[in-house]
Amino acid sequence: MSINITGIGASSGIAIAKAFVLENPELEIETKKVQSADEEIERLESALKQSRQELEAIKEHTEKELGEDKAEIFAAHLLVLQDPELVDTVKDKIKTEQINAESALNDVSSMFITMFEQMDNEYMKERAADIRDVSKRVLAHLLGVTFASPASITEEVIIIAEDLTPSDTAQLNRKYVKGFATDIGGRTSHSAIMSRSMEIPAVVGTKSVTEQIKADTLVIIDGLDGHVIVDPSEEEIAQYNKKKEQFEAQKAEWAKLVNEPSVTKDDHHVELAANIGTPDDVKGVIENGAEGVGLYRTEFLYMGRNELPTEDEQFEAYKTVLEKMEGKPVVIRTLDIGGDKELPYLNLPKEMNPFLGFRAIRLCLEEQDIFRTQLRALLRASTFGNLKVMFPMIATLDEFRQAKAILLEEKDKLVSEGVQVSDEIEVGMMVEIPSTAVMADQFAKEVDFFSIGTNDLIQYTMASDRMNEKVSYLYQPYNPAILRLVNMVVKAAHKEGKWAGMCGEMAGDSIAIPILLGIGLDEFSMSATSILAARSQISKLSKQEIESHIETILNLGTTEEVIEFVENNFQ
Amino acid sequence: MSINITGIGASSGIAIAKAFVLENPELEIETKKVQSADEEIERLESALKQSRQELEAIKEHTEKELGEDKAEIFAAHLLVLQDPELVDTVKDKIKTEQINAESALNDVSSMFITMFEQMDNEYMKERAADIRDVSKRVLAHLLGVTFASPASITEEVIIIAEDLTPSDTAQLNRKYVKGFATDIGGRTSHSAIMSRSMEIPAVVGTKSVTEQIKADTLVIIDGLDGHVIVDPSEEEIAQYNKKKEQFEAQKAEWAKLVNEPSVTKDDHHVELAANIGTPDDVKGVIENGAEGVGLYRTEFLYMGRNELPTEDEQFEAYKTVLEKMEGKPVVIRTLDIGGDKELPYLNLPKEMNPFLGFRAIRLCLEEQDIFRTQLRALLRASTFGNLKVMFPMIATLDEFRQAKAILLEEKDKLVSEGVQVSDEIEVGMMVEIPSTAVMADQFAKEVDFFSIGTNDLIQYTMASDRMNEKVSYLYQPYNPAILRLVNMVVKAAHKEGKWAGMCGEMAGDSIAIPILLGIGLDEFSMSATSILAARSQISKLSKQEIESHIETILNLGTTEEVIEFVENNFQ
Repeated sequence: MSINITGIGASSGIAIAKAFVLENPELEIETKKVQSADEEIERLESALKQSRQELEAIKEHTEKELGEDKAEIFAAHLLVLQDPELVDTVKDKIKTEQINAESALNDVSSMFITMFEQMDNEYMKERAADIRDVSKRVLAHLLGVTFASPASITEEVIIIAEDLTPSDTAQLNRKYVKGFATDIGGRTSHSAIMSRSMEIPAVVGTKSVTEQIKADTLVIIDGLDGHVIVDPSEEEIAQYNKKKEQFEAQKAEWAKLVNEPSVTKDDHHVELAANIGTPDDVKGVIENGAEGVGLYRTEFLYMGRNELPTEDEQFEAYKTVLEKMEGKPVVIRTLDIGGDKELPYLNLPKEMNPFLGFRAIRLCLEEQDIFRTQLRALLRASTFGNLKVMFPMIATLDEFRQAKAILLEEKDKLVSEGVQVSDEIEVGMMVEIPSTAVMADQFAKEVDFFSIGTNDLIQYTMASDRMNEKVSYLYQPYNPAILRLVNMVVKAAHKEGKWAGMCGEMAGDSIAIPILLGIGLDEFSMSATSILAARSQISKLSKQEIESHIETILNLGTTEEVIEFVENNFQ
Repeated sequence: MSINITGIGASSGIAIAKAFVLENPELEIETKKVQSADEEIERLESALKQSRQELEAIKEHTEKELGEDKAEIFAAHLLVLQDPELVDTVKDKIKTEQINAESALNDVSSMFITMFEQMDNEYMKERAADIRDVSKRVLAHLLGVTFASPASITEEVIIIAEDLTPSDTAQLNRKYVKGFATDIGGRTSHSAIMSRSMEIPAVVGTKSVTEQIKADTLVIIDGLDGHVIVDPSEEEIAQYNKKKEQFEAQKAEWAKLVNEPSVTKDDHHVELAANIGTPDDVKGVIENGAEGVGLYRTEFLYMGRNELPTEDEQFEAYKTVLEKMEGKPVVIRTLDIGGDKELPYLNLPKEMNPFLGFRAIRLCLEEQDIFRTQLRALLRASTFGNLKVMFPMIATLDEFRQAKAILLEEKDKLVSEGVQVSDEIEVGMMVEIPSTAVMADQFAKEVDFFSIGTNDLIQYTMASDRMNEKVSYLYQPYNPAILRLVNMVVKAAHKEGKWAGMCGEMAGDSIAIPILLGIGLDEFSMSATSILAARSQISKLSKQEIESHIETILNLGTTEEVIEFVENNFQ
C-alpha cells in the first residue's frame, strides 16, 4: 500500500519519478600528531585551492542558470575560504599543536560556528551556515571523500533529502531532477524559494521523507497540495497523471496570457507587476508578461561584498533594469538594510528587536552619504526609462518629507552640474508600518503613490514576528484588521488622485486577489512566476460584483470567516 | 561663576544642598599562589556569609521602606550568592590552580558576566549586572575594603554618582539625601524609577556630573526641568528657592484633592486609577487618592524565584489587593511574561524579536496549566472586592474567545466544587496590538472593557522598539496615528455601552490628558504619584470645549503640531 506524507507545497506542479535519496554522511575526523606542520599546511592549502575552484565553477553555473542573486551565496562562500581570521587560525593551530590539518580545521571552524550561532542575529547565523558548508567541502578534499552529488544524476529522479543546501540546489539539473521533497523547511526557506524559481514541483517540511523513502522507490510529488505519495498504486498514478495534465493545461492556458492586459470580466484594468532583486531577474519578468516592476529590492547590490557599491555600479544596475523594461514602470526601492538584512561592513549595532530597529529609511536619514549616493545613481538613471522612487519603512510624515527633500537636493545638484535628470520621476513610499496606513489620508497629499508592503505590515499590525514559528499563526494576511488597513490606504490614495499598489506576498495570493480587486488596488506586484495565474484569475472576476461585498468582508471578525466568504463567493 | 549641566529630569522637585560624590573605586585583584587551598576556601565562605548577612539586611530595609517589588533585586542577589554553578566553579579553581580566593572569584565571575552579557537578552544582561554587583561585594569583604556607602551619610546632601546601583539606592536615607544626579541613565532606568518612588528630586543622564562636581560644592537639582546648577550664585539660589516654594505650594494644593472626585470644569467625571506591581503598592494608591487600580501587573508574583507561584500564593496576593481597595475597581491583568520579561524556570526559547514573539496570552493559551492556575486564584479572590480580569497581548478575536472560554470553564469547575465565585466579574482586554484597535468595533461586542496599553501600542504602530535608542525618536505618543487609534477604541467601546481606559504612561501625561479627555476616555490609570497632578489638571479643563477641537487634532499631521496645538489651546 502506498504511503501519503503531508508537507508544505513549496512549488506548484506534479512530478512522478523514482527517488534519489541525497545523503549527507557525517565526516569522521581523527586528531593525529604530525611530524611536519609544513606538510599539513601544504595539504590545507591544496584543499582550499580545490574548494575554491569548485566553488567558482558552481558560482558561474548558478549565475548562468539561475541568475546573479542566486549565486550570491557562493560569493559568500568564497569569502569564507579567503577569510584570514579563519585560515590563519587553522595554520597557527597546526603549527603550535603539531596536529593534522583536518583536525585543526574542524576544531577552528566549529569554534567559529558556535560563536556565530550564539550571536542570535540572522546574518551571523547565516555566516555560521556558510562556514559549516565551506569547511565540510574543504574537509572532504582533505579526507579524499566524495559526496553523492546532485550533479551526478543522469536519469529522471525526485530528490529526497533532509534539506537542500545552496550548493546542492545550484547543482540540480532541471533535465533530470523532476521534483524534490525535504524533511525540513517552510514556504520561505531557501530550498522552497529555489524550487519556485526553477519551476520544479516541491514539497518541504514533511518531517519524515528521508526516513520513509528508500532509494529507487517510485514517488509522486504533489506541489499543489503538499503531498508526497510513496509507492503509489496504479490508480493513484493514473489519478495524479490526470492532475498533472490538468495543471499543465492550465499552465498552457496561462501562457497564452503573456501579451494580454490584466482586465476583469467587467473591463476594469489593473497592473500586474513583478518583484525583482537584480537586473538579471528582468528576463523572467518579461517572459511572464509583467506590466512593470513593482518592487526592485536594491539590497542585493549591497550584499555579499566587503564595501558599499559605488554610484557608478548602482547607476549601471538601475539603467540596465530601466532600459530592459522599455518604458514600462519600474519602482525602485531605496536601501532597506537592517532588521534581518545586515551589512557586515556597516558595523551596525546589535539590536534586541531588529524588526523594530534601526533599518531602511531610518538608517538612510542618518547615514546620508550612503543615501545620497544611491539617490544620485537613481536620478542619473532616470532618463533611461520610467523610474519611480520608493522609500521603505516610513513611519511619520517628517521622515517622508526629509527623504524627499534630500532627493530634490541631489536632483538640483545634478542639474546644476549639467547632468540630465527626468522630470517625470514619481516619488512614493512603502506602507508597511501601521501608523502610515492609519495616516494614509495625510500622506496621500504628499506622495505620488503608495505600495503596501504586506509582509511587514502584517507582522507589525499583529505584533508577530513572521520568522518565529511559535507565533506564526498570527501572520494572517486575510485578518479583517489587515484588510481594513489596506482599504484605508487605497481609498486615501484615490481621494487625492494617487495610485496604490501592493508588493508583499499577499498581492499574488488567490484568496487575497478578489478582495484587493474589490477594494480598488491599482497595482499588484508579485513573483514573476505568479503573474499569469493572477491574470487568469482576474479575467474571470467582476470588480463590480466584488465591490458590493467589500463592506460585508471588512465587517467579518476572523481570518477563517474571510477565507470562507471568498471561497463561497468568488471561486 | 556657576555651571549649568543639563540632563533628564527623572523625579520632580527642587533640592539645594552640598554634593556628596559617591565614588566606586576599582578593586585591585592580584593573583597569588597559595599553600593551602582549604584556607582560601574558608576565606571565601566567610566573605560569602558576610555578604549574605549584609544583603539580607538591605533587602529587609528596602522591603520596609520601599515595598516588596523594590526589594526583588536583592532576592536575585541572594540567589547569585547561592548559585552552585558560580560558587563551586570558584572553589574548583582555587583547588586546581592553588590560587587566592580573590583572584579565582574575579576570574570566574568575569567569565560569567561576559557570557551573560553576550547573550543579547535583557534578562541575561540583568543577571550579568547582578553578578557584577554581588561579586564586587564579596571581593570587598575578601580584600577588607569598605566603600563610601550612602548609608554613612549623616547630613543633608545631594548625591553625585556615575550611576546608582540597586544596593546604593536601597541604602539612601530620605532624611539626609535631598536629591541626586547621575552621569548615565534615562527616564526609565533603575535609578530614575527609584527616585520617583522615593519622591527625591533627581536628574539623570547628565554625562558629566562626576567630572564637573567636587565634593562639598553647593549644588541645585532641578528635577522639573532637568538641570544641575553647580556653585550657584546668590541670585540663582533665590530664584530656585522661589521655584521650590511654588512647586511645594502646588504639591500642597494637589494634596487637598486626595479625597475629591476627578471632574472637569463642566462636571464630567472620569476615573483616575493607579498601576501597581505588588500588594504593597496599594498603600501608595490610597495615599494618592486613586479611584481604583487600573492595572495590577501580576508578573512580579512570578519573578525573582525558582518556580511558579502556587494557586494559593496567588489567591492571597489578589485577595489582599481586592480587600485593601475596599470595593473600588481593581483590574488584574493575567500573566504578561515573555518579551523583555523572562522567567528563567520556564525555559522559553530565545527569540530574534522578543517584542514580536511568544509572550503574554500567546504563552498562556499554550501553557494552559499556568494560565488555569492563575485564573482559579483570581476567581477564588473575586468575592473579596470588585475584580475585573484583563487579558494582555490579544491580537485576534479567536484569542479573546479562547481566553474567556477557559476562564468560564474554570469558573464552572469551581462553582461545581462549591467554591464561591463572584458573578459580577468584568472580563476585558488590553488594546496594545494595532489589529485590535483597528477591529475595536468587533471586539467591543464581546468584551466588558478595553484598557489601552500605550507603551506597546505605540511601539507596534510605529514599528519602533522603545528600548532602542537609535529609533526612540519614533516613540511618539502624540502622533496623530496613535491618537486616531485611541479614538477608534473609545468610540467603539461607547457604541456598545462598554468603558475604555488607558494604562500606559501616556494616561498620566499632561499633554495627552486634555486630548484623551476630549476623546472621551473613561479611565486613566497611571503611577500613583501622578494622580493628584492629573486630577488638578482635569479640574481646570472643559471636556465640551476640547471635544470641539478633537477632529482638528486628529487631522494634524505630526507630533509637533499636536504638542503645539495643546500648548496653545488647553494650557
